[in-house]
Amino acid sequence: MFDATVASQEQQMDTNGARRFEIVDTARKGSLSDQAVIDADRRWTSLGQDSAKSELFDGKARANASVYRCNIESYVGTVSIPVGIAGPLRIHGRAGTADYRVPLATTEAALVASYNRGSKLITAAGGCNARVVDEAVSRTPVFVFESLMDAEVFADFVCKHSASLDFVVASVTSHGQLLSIRPVIEGNHVYIDLRFKTGDASGQNMVTFATEAICKTILERSPVRIRYWFLEGNLSGDKKATTQSLGNVRGKRVIADVTIASELVEQQLHTTPDRMVDYWYASAIGGVMSGSTGIHGHYANGLAALYLACGQDIACVAESATGITRLETTREGDLYVSVTLPNIMVGTVGGGTALPSAKACLDILGLAGSGNSTALAEVAAAIVLAGELSIIAGLCSGDFASAHRSLSRGGVSRGGAVI
Amino acid sequence: MFDATVASQEQQMDTNGARRFEIVDTARKGSLSDQAVIDADRRWTSLGQDSAKSELFDGKARANASVYRCNIESYVGTVSIPVGIAGPLRIHGRAGTADYRVPLATTEAALVASYNRGSKLITAAGGCNARVVDEAVSRTPVFVFESLMDAEVFADFVCKHSASLDFVVASVTSHGQLLSIRPVIEGNHVYIDLRFKTGDASGQNMVTFATEAICKTILERSPVRIRYWFLEGNLSGDKKATTQSLGNVRGKRVIADVTIASELVEQQLHTTPDRMVDYWYASAIGGVMSGSTGIHGHYANGLAALYLACGQDIACVAESATGITRLETTREGDLYVSVTLPNIMVGTVGGGTALPSAKACLDILGLAGSGNSTALAEVAAAIVLAGELSIIAGLCSGDFASAHRSLSRGGVSRGGAVI
Amino acid sequence: MFDATVASQEQQMDTNGARRFEIVDTARKGSLSDQAVIDADRRWTSLGQDSAKSELFDGKARANASVYRCNIESYVGTVSIPVGIAGPLRIHGRAGTADYRVPLATTEAALVASYNRGSKLITAAGGCNARVVDEAVSRTPVFVFESLMDAEVFADFVCKHSASLDFVVASVTSHGQLLSIRPVIEGNHVYIDLRFKTGDASGQNMVTFATEAICKTILERSPVRIRYWFLEGNLSGDKKATTQSLGNVRGKRVIADVTIASELVEQQLHTTPDRMVDYWYASAIGGVMSGSTGIHGHYANGLAALYLACGQDIACVAESATGITRLETTREGDLYVSVTLPNIMVGTVGGGTALPSAKACLDILGLAGSGNSTALAEVAAAIVLAGELSIIAGLCSGDFASAHRSLSRGGVSRGGAVI
Amino acid sequence: MFDATVASQEQQMDTNGARRFEIVDTARKGSLSDQAVIDADRRWTSLGQDSAKSELFDGKARANASVYRCNIESYVGTVSIPVGIAGPLRIHGRAGTADYRVPLATTEAALVASYNRGSKLITAAGGCNARVVDEAVSRTPVFVFESLMDAEVFADFVCKHSASLDFVVASVTSHGQLLSIRPVIEGNHVYIDLRFKTGDASGQNMVTFATEAICKTILERSPVRIRYWFLEGNLSGDKKATTQSLGNVRGKRVIADVTIASELVEQQLHTTPDRMVDYWYASAIGGVMSGSTGIHGHYANGLAALYLACGQDIACVAESATGITRLETTREGDLYVSVTLPNIMVGTVGGGTALPSAKACLDILGLAGSGNSTALAEVAAAIVLAGELSIIAGLCSGDFASAHRSLSRGGVSRGGAVI
Repeated sequence: MFDATVASQEQQMDTNGARRFEIVDTARKGSLSDQAVIDADRRWTSLGQDSAKSELFDGKARANASVYRCNIESYVGTVSIPVGIAGPLRIHGRAGTADYRVPLATTEAALVASYNRGSKLITAAGGCNARVVDEAVSRTPVFVFESLMDAEVFADFVCKHSASLDFVVASVTSHGQLLSIRPVIEGNHVYIDLRFKTGDASGQNMVTFATEAICKTILERSPVRIRYWFLEGNLSGDKKATTQSLGNVRGKRVIADVTIASELVEQQLHTTPDRMVDYWYASAIGGVMSGSTGIHGHYANGLAALYLACGQDIACVAESATGITRLETTREGDLYVSVTLPNIMVGTVGGGTALPSAKACLDILGLAGSGNSTALAEVAAAIVLAGELSIIAGLCSGDFASAHRSLSRGGVSRGGAVI
Repeated sequence: MFDATVASQEQQMDTNGARRFEIVDTARKGSLSDQAVIDADRRWTSLGQDSAKSELFDGKARANASVYRCNIESYVGTVSIPVGIAGPLRIHGRAGTADYRVPLATTEAALVASYNRGSKLITAAGGCNARVVDEAVSRTPVFVFESLMDAEVFADFVCKHSASLDFVVASVTSHGQLLSIRPVIEGNHVYIDLRFKTGDASGQNMVTFATEAICKTILERSPVRIRYWFLEGNLSGDKKATTQSLGNVRGKRVIADVTIASELVEQQLHTTPDRMVDYWYASAIGGVMSGSTGIHGHYANGLAALYLACGQDIACVAESATGITRLETTREGDLYVSVTLPNIMVGTVGGGTALPSAKACLDILGLAGSGNSTALAEVAAAIVLAGELSIIAGLCSGDFASAHRSLSRGGVSRGGAVI
Repeated sequence: MFDATVASQEQQMDTNGARRFEIVDTARKGSLSDQAVIDADRRWTSLGQDSAKSELFDGKARANASVYRCNIESYVGTVSIPVGIAGPLRIHGRAGTADYRVPLATTEAALVASYNRGSKLITAAGGCNARVVDEAVSRTPVFVFESLMDAEVFADFVCKHSASLDFVVASVTSHGQLLSIRPVIEGNHVYIDLRFKTGDASGQNMVTFATEAICKTILERSPVRIRYWFLEGNLSGDKKATTQSLGNVRGKRVIADVTIASELVEQQLHTTPDRMVDYWYASAIGGVMSGSTGIHGHYANGLAALYLACGQDIACVAESATGITRLETTREGDLYVSVTLPNIMVGTVGGGTALPSAKACLDILGLAGSGNSTALAEVAAAIVLAGELSIIAGLCSGDFASAHRSLSRGGVSRGGAVI
Repeated sequence: MFDATVASQEQQMDTNGARRFEIVDTARKGSLSDQAVIDADRRWTSLGQDSAKSELFDGKARANASVYRCNIESYVGTVSIPVGIAGPLRIHGRAGTADYRVPLATTEAALVASYNRGSKLITAAGGCNARVVDEAVSRTPVFVFESLMDAEVFADFVCKHSASLDFVVASVTSHGQLLSIRPVIEGNHVYIDLRFKTGDASGQNMVTFATEAICKTILERSPVRIRYWFLEGNLSGDKKATTQSLGNVRGKRVIADVTIASELVEQQLHTTPDRMVDYWYASAIGGVMSGSTGIHGHYANGLAALYLACGQDIACVAESATGITRLETTREGDLYVSVTLPNIMVGTVGGGTALPSAKACLDILGLAGSGNSTALAEVAAAIVLAGELSIIAGLCSGDFASAHRSLSRGGVSRGGAVI
């Protein structure tokens, strides 16, 4: 029989979002599943769309109804999104060299073809380097005071007692770790920039719970009256591209770079390093004039497709699709390209990563479960590098429009497509 | 038998990306499908992941292999993403008042619950207004000259002949319409900001093909030597949040607003209009200090879930999740809230909108096919409004952390969840 | 005797800010001057700083007391700021080629030396091109409505009647000209972006008065109730660097470019085109990561010194010191450099331009009075170009620190200084 | 007789830019002055503008020619800029309460009147709070490597040896102090964010010299090959408004706030707290949509006038005129206003602060010389606060246009002017 206490305890240990479905015993699973199906059927009765129901709430969606119970509310079924494979993509990462086949989920023609072309080029060039060079996820609660005078006293107080807050965090999470506390005063407001390491989870829930605990402790001991406060004052950059992350980090700061011989560029991309650098000049400045955050081509395409395939939070594409692409010719006339992504939010435990589709895609990468989030971030940077190479080449060679025309009609394109 | 000429002609008429699968005759469909399955099987042989294959390349993914041929390359199957329903959400839109049930696809706990809570609140308040107030999709080719002198001559030339380029566009697309041409000179570079109406398609491919045609015409007639040029100079903001769109438009500029009686706020959101406005102050400034584009809470969550459910390009979340949320108390003490989204990229034809899952979700909204893109943009704004209400209230009432804790464990939360 | 009516009429004709001191007759000038001195003496009595008084309120400041009466309030004297001369600086401008000696007022060591070095280099290279490619000064009043619905009706109303507002503007100013009217809706707010040509005045006052007249007309005829409104809704970018101006214009959009032979670079700047381009790469990306508006080195130094010398509004440095510097090597290995300044606010009539010091400096340039604002903007761009060349070379050759060390001690530096 | 060795040694001790003219002995002063006059006369011969010469190179400019030798090159005289006095302005600062008369140099009508009005209002309300809450000036040299791999090794090396660099700094400056070292990796580039305390000097030269010494040390010991490097990689924000400073600091982060009774607002500003808050809403969002850095009205006006009067680097207006203005009504219906300026660059020693005009203006404030830079920063914040109050009120009451019309014609305006 099912012991709710045990399940509850295990979940208690698991506040980092690394929810595991196995802990639910069969008996409960059965009844939960029944209830989930009944609920979904009831919703469909109210929606009254028979053909939609048969598409979304098919046998598999029905069978898996309870599998999704920690990931969705008001469940009515599933959407099916096609997945393509790009690669092999050779990466020289923190843990050594590996060749990845990268699953990308999208409904946009030319996307997989383009990333595939870039991936193969990188591999033909001997592989790219990739490194997570910094990591931290922040929450930024805000406290409101009578005046600047109280705000300053409070900020000093928080600085002085920051060490003791480690203990508070440890009581809430065994995976998260408080990295730093920094008050930012604005008028009579004090934002506290709390930065955490979050292990192999992307960590937004973990830092929320830890921040809540920290705030409670601070509230009890503040030397000045706090008029009111909020758990998140919108300085963290959660779900938003921000300039502050460009020279810093949110989630993981990941970089990938590669040098490609000019012959390879000409042969596989039908253009030259010089022309690609010319493009980068024009494109960098176009981006700056548009007021974009950072300088790049289309990070969002690759990141959205990878995040979706691998059970990552796709809303994080909004914050992750920012950074710096840089192209130079080397003194030998070869092409150097780097991408710097300061805000990659990925995890290999927690969130949607254990759901069946995500687990399958992570398995293709060989990166399911604990110990793999750094490598997954490296894959994210490397696939983005592949995409930048391919789109820039496409715009240089004139393939861009023709590839889109051809592939969006189910055809093929010269030398792989471009997006 | 299949007549390739006919198919080709029909596709020619269909350059706006509104690809229809019906035009492929049965004979070809059969063979295409067979080939698509054979190709996918071959890829799996190379990947060698049996359990992943059975999850991703199940019977339905196998049966639909050819359905996706204009939307994916290197196909290996599909991922299943759970869908929840939020609403009813009452919208007073361009075409009248309607109550929507909004399908949201996500793997993040609390998301649907939060948008559902906000939607019901809006409906209880009598519904929100929503309007598309401007629309245009741009491409921005860039031309490079010897010096500023030639650049200026070229820019003048383009301005003078802009009228005649309408004709060029008409020859390429029957759905797209050239709205304006504006040269932007930077040093010896000239970017041309070409803005188009794209009908009911989100339109990125349409504007690419039209721009290609315009550029060819310009290239033939330029009075000065063009050293080189590129189809897109990265000034358009494609797939990137940009400041330039905030006071302007990319895709559709959509606004939604609502006034909610203070009693309703207290009863359903467990907080007060005053406190929510206090939060907006702190949050607006937190956002500004972070260097985010616009001022808002979490547009990306709702947009990503809606885009994914409805066959939109999810990479566009990167550009769409930007804008302005504003809260005020009225003189009567009620709550006024608006969201302004300058960069909504949605279509009801073309892209992934005709794929089975997307079609089903659009059917739930009653917005599949031509004539519905304005209403879909209104739904996008309204659901975003619902989400802002819910998260802000959650941060004011203290529900934020507890709802996440509870729902990410498959539980329930007080009065609906918050994200 | 003084005829107040006449004076008033002449001033009426002079709403473009081109205030002329000659219109005041001698009798009044005498008494005004006496009164101005008496007032200043009174203020010094209250301040009680004898040595400060003798420095600031010296004989000339006393004699000119009434000269400043339209430019300062609560007058207590003048500060003396040293001026240096840079050049000759050869410019190929709209009206032909000219060699300028450029007066620069500053108290910062190395500044004039650096701009001088760059100016001479440009001249040695044959001169730079400079062009005003666009111009417009905007005011952006904002109107507040009950809801989005009224806002939309109002915006439509304004668009429809924009033509008739030209007449309103003509009644207020003979120099200003309404270029365009564009409503920007945000929630229940409507900002109206009013863009004007302002002749040879920088024009902020002119557009304020014209906007006031337009608003009055709109207020009388609005088809919906305006809850309240403000003459400026802070969308214009007045006195603030803005991203929106980068791909557009505020004031004058001015560009300068030059190609410099590699030998000249090596001989005069002690570095190479390649190294300077290397620097530009690193510096462009440093700027982007810092979240600066545009990409450049130190526009503010040259602009502040030029504006101060020439009677421009030095607070406008905040908005003008933004834009794009770009360096490339040509296929021949020479150095191409351009600066694009989208927001130059200069006039040769009005503001402080007729004050004695400003008049003297404009005379050195040969640009005092009507008909010269375009050329003054070209000088601004060209001197900024000179400064970018010099500082970048200084950072490449290693002169940067040593020149500052030497010149800030009254010494000399190798090959001209760098700032 | 003059002992060059002694002078040189004293200057050596004075690398923080606190140049003192007294150290030069009389004999040398005489000859230097003669030479400076001869040089200036020679320049005028070449310029050939007699009336300009008599204005700029008058008796005082001639007599002081050598006084400016450490602050200008190619000297030809001085410009005279009128100064007005605003205040009394009561500030509750770090060192206690003081009433300041604030000298403002400008040629723009209405500016002093507006700041004066705001200052008197603040004083009538009992004074404002002002605090420097953080301070640091940075230089950001950049180092370029073969690839990301070397960049990472180098960054680790710098982090590990940061402590020992304090010693290097101490050998260069006795006033500057190294606060922190933080490497920022982008591709194969490493920027090092070096942050310093600079005592009472604004400190740009000091940090340049210290950075040069640090770089030399690093270069000698780097474990990997540095391809090339630059003393400043443009990440520091020198002379440029940057988003990165908003939630951080460059120079001094200064805040001022005040609460003003509603009666006082109505009586002196002819409007209400509610209307002023309404304005703030519209204006904050206008600013955000324009892509300005921060949210404010017209910081540049007050800062430029104060910097110019007090011998500060006026080019720094470009970076200093950024921050956050916030208005709220208190629960009692009074007006709370704060300004947060993250990037105030002021000093009371060094730069132009010891020149005669600057010394006189600093004397009026009572803030000349060592120990006063914090108070000067507080004055900067407080005068900016005064200006925000006045302009916002002017835009609410309708005084804005009329005051400009009146004052720019030498008239008076109702209740003080607005800018």
